[in-house]
Amino acid sequence: MARRANKPTLIAVGGHEDKAENPEILQSVADRLGRKKVIVATLASNAAKDAWEDYKKVFGGLGVEAVHLNLESRTEALDETSISILDGAGGIFFTGGDQLAITAKLGGTLLCQHMHGLFMKGNLVIAGTSAGASVLSETMLVSGDNERSHRAKALLLMAPGLGFISGVVIDQHFAERGRVSRLLGIVAQNPRTLGIGVDENTAVLIEGDTFDVIGDGAVYVVDGHPITHTNLSEQEADKTISIFGVRLHVLGRGDRFHLHERTPEPPKEDASS
Amino acid sequence: MARRANKPTLIAVGGHEDKAENPEILQSVADRLGRKKVIVATLASNAAKDAWEDYKKVFGGLGVEAVHLNLESRTEALDETSISILDGAGGIFFTGGDQLAITAKLGGTLLCQHMHGLFMKGNLVIAGTSAGASVLSETMLVSGDNERSHRAKALLLMAPGLGFISGVVIDQHFAERGRVSRLLGIVAQNPRTLGIGVDENTAVLIEGDTFDVIGDGAVYVVDGHPITHTNLSEQEADKTISIFGVRLHVLGRGDRFHLHERTPEPPKEDASS
Repeated sequence: MARRANKPTLIAVGGHEDKAENPEILQSVADRLGRKKVIVATLASNAAKDAWEDYKKVFGGLGVEAVHLNLESRTEALDETSISILDGAGGIFFTGGDQLAITAKLGGTLLCQHMHGLFMKGNLVIAGTSAGASVLSETMLVSGDNERSHRAKALLLMAPGLGFISGVVIDQHFAERGRVSRLLGIVAQNPRTLGIGVDENTAVLIEGDTFDVIGDGAVYVVDGHPITHTNLSEQEADKTISIFGVRLHVLGRGDRFHLHERTPEPPKEDASS
Repeated sequence: MARRANKPTLIAVGGHEDKAENPEILQSVADRLGRKKVIVATLASNAAKDAWEDYKKVFGGLGVEAVHLNLESRTEALDETSISILDGAGGIFFTGGDQLAITAKLGGTLLCQHMHGLFMKGNLVIAGTSAGASVLSETMLVSGDNERSHRAKALLLMAPGLGFISGVVIDQHFAERGRVSRLLGIVAQNPRTLGIGVDENTAVLIEGDTFDVIGDGAVYVVDGHPITHTNLSEQEADKTISIFGVRLHVLGRGDRFHLHERTPEPPKEDASS
């Protein structure tokens, strides 16, 4: 057992994680780096330098050395020399902004392939916040209407993500931006996909087949398996779609979710109190 | 059968119903008035005169005579003379604003008692939009946080409503203001209560034990019966609450819901097409 590699670990943060008073989510990232450095990837940001400075400072305060990854072009990540940033790294943290800016530069590059390899062996924690959380899954949500119930023809812009986890779509800033309608729309399109909506200053810590909830807000799990009826295919495109029988879970700090069985589990009774 | 009274009819509108291009919801109200006049009750509004002028014009355009109910004080509604406004009325329409302004003036008055009597006999349609929709139920939601997941100590201000329907709480402007979290919070408090969230320019037409969806948006039904776990009672008040196993339905135009069985029903196939 002692020599066995760690489980692949993903941390998807719903945005606006506390960086000052109680940086518990970034502390959770730091705790899983095995005393190695963290790569702060600001590819999504149009203010990359500011984002880098912020996270460098917070991780520094948590005793973690940070290095900056901000590709000027895709070409850099195709080159063998780009891989050297992974030397001595325990994890990578994708900051927020535009998820397509991450995938367009990083997706399918040599650097990204090496990240996958280290991740699968449990040797590189992959974390991200906001756009950096959405980008972690095989299929990602890029944008969609927050303010209307879902229409068949509504703009739900999806794209291939970085593919660190399959079968789920991760949405962020969830309660804060009222995004349940768009996540329901995605799940209705194909109930095979499990919808995971993460509030701000909240995260899912995915290890193998389970995730745990950390942070201050809630995580919404939209399970479409029990759906008995939708009219997505048969109707006029501008009609609000009907979705009968969705199973919805609201998870808070300490709750666990089993992805394969699609079942939530409350925290064990605290024996220490 | 011909002499049997109509079923009691309630129409709860999610706010911002179309009053110009396609006033289908107000047309549905008009269709159920039995060619009688409608009472436009602007008690909730702090711009009562404007609201009255607007609705007078729209109902006029639909061929319905409107009369104005705007109590200056509660005393008026305690007096026998107040009841005369009900003579020849087929329905009452409560406009939006502050639901407590409706209940504080009208609740428990002689006028309100007479409304109940006529409603129960199927002789007075009761309709309302926005605050005027929330006020229809036995217990009503007055206000609650739209922008965070529900905390046990969060301000979910509830109050006794006008009591035309029991066992449900009606929320409005639902997708537009991202209100699913607060409705989940109410249902978690007591899963006996069925949560009904109505989008703008959308309505539930409640006749007896069923309701039909009309209008452009969606109606969300939050059914707490299958909830397997909440930690509402056992936790620190500022912790986000967990709610496992909620059943959620999204209903669109033409869908029906059976309140007693808590089951949705899609529209019958349109044989005319």
